[in-house]
Amino acid sequence: MIQTKPLIVKLGGSVITDKQRRFSVRRETLRRIARELAAAKEPLIVVHGGGSFGHPIASKYGIAKGYAYKRQLMGFSLTHRAMEELNRYVVDALKEAGIPAMTIQPSACAVVRNGRIISMELAPIRKLLELGITPVLYGDVAPDLSRGMSILSGDQLVMYLARELGASRVILGVDVDGFYTADPKSHKDAKLVREVTPESWRDLAKSANNSKVKDTTGGMSKKIEELLPLAELGVEAEIVNAARPGILRRAVLGERGLGTRIIAR
Amino acid sequence: MIQTKPLIVKLGGSVITDKQRRFSVRRETLRRIARELAAAKEPLIVVHGGGSFGHPIASKYGIAKGYAYKRQLMGFSLTHRAMEELNRYVVDALKEAGIPAMTIQPSACAVVRNGRIISMELAPIRKLLELGITPVLYGDVAPDLSRGMSILSGDQLVMYLARELGASRVILGVDVDGFYTADPKSHKDAKLVREVTPESWRDLAKSANNSKVKDTTGGMSKKIEELLPLAELGVEAEIVNAARPGILRRAVLGERGLGTRIIAR
Repeated sequence: MIQTKPLIVKLGGSVITDKQRRFSVRRETLRRIARELAAAKEPLIVVHGGGSFGHPIASKYGIAKGYAYKRQLMGFSLTHRAMEELNRYVVDALKEAGIPAMTIQPSACAVVRNGRIISMELAPIRKLLELGITPVLYGDVAPDLSRGMSILSGDQLVMYLARELGASRVILGVDVDGFYTADPKSHKDAKLVREVTPESWRDLAKSANNSKVKDTTGGMSKKIEELLPLAELGVEAEIVNAARPGILRRAVLGERGLGTRIIAR
Repeated sequence: MIQTKPLIVKLGGSVITDKQRRFSVRRETLRRIARELAAAKEPLIVVHGGGSFGHPIASKYGIAKGYAYKRQLMGFSLTHRAMEELNRYVVDALKEAGIPAMTIQPSACAVVRNGRIISMELAPIRKLLELGITPVLYGDVAPDLSRGMSILSGDQLVMYLARELGASRVILGVDVDGFYTADPKSHKDAKLVREVTPESWRDLAKSANNSKVKDTTGGMSKKIEELLPLAELGVEAEIVNAARPGILRRAVLGERGLGTRIIAR
């Protein structure tokens, strides 16, 4: 089974949904993004976040804390169902743009312990890629071998797949231009960081933490901390603004330097 | 991980959909069936067929023959999408009846070669059962390691799960009373067979084939041929009429002899 390495694109929940309004998809944005992704010349894997679909229900039922009381069972089921709903919009938008896309339900194939993927059945994904079908995964709830249940984030899936399948590159589409030295909304002197390396990270992270970027950008520091070990394995990543028309297209066509690159030197 | 053996219930596509009309769910029947299943005292796995959802598209694109031409990629994706649609109705009906139910996408966790499951990630299913959540699977398309793509039937899933998880019992809900010696619609002397054993099967199969029961009852002989090896492993099965109110409830509560039992002596 010889095949080209896949390009993995993550679509942030805040890009494709309106986080302020429950169950609200940004349909036009999604259609535009699908058209931009259709420009890709490599086998593609798409992973998307939960936005206003999964998050509110998951947090209402405390899914991330593990299984503790019976009503969580329905909450677990409802959270998954909300994510299926959002996923249908994504898959349909991709198909409309001419990409043969197929859902892969993360909670059906990932084995999770303490919130982390310990193994995952990847044969169906590999075969889909070989056929020329784009697997579409998403942040999901998952039965957890030690906690009973947990949240399986889209970011974690991206990292796992990139490592195990040897991705050609990872592109994280978010709703800001990349990683800033401080929150750009409240700090006039905040600067977009063009490149993060394992070496440069320690200083950056420190200043970022001081200015609470972590809290205001939806865990950008956490994303980078997950991406850095990947860079060290030779898989480069870039955080780009998918809310700005045209950026994602240029990124999937191979352009670098559009946002924040996470690389090893 | 100690747990009770699951009871596996298959819902035939012809019971829950109107096979004559594309994408038509029998909603009332489905609601009634869900209420009947809610009577179960054991951990439950539900598997359903494709009926008027999956079959027409799958056959239009020749999915069962394997991958041969590019347009099949969209057909593959569309067939899966239709099955997801039907599956949502089933899962929602189960939830309405108070059963915490969750989809498990077969094509995400089964590894298929030449149309047969060669392995399957079962950890999520086991954990769901342990939590008290009912996994719901369905006949699906699947990437196939040798043919590219194939159909993964609900029946095959039932047999695989029953064998690998050691089911307490298998109940196949169909729209006839069980297995007949001949097609009851055209043969007045057709008799319902109350019990099939590996020993009795050879004679029965011969008469059944002669009278073309195979063609008129949606492959009932084929179902029995899949169920007999299971009986020999100690998992008994029964084919019952799920279209008749009350039968499924009695069956899940443990009653035997409601249709055709497939057992080893």
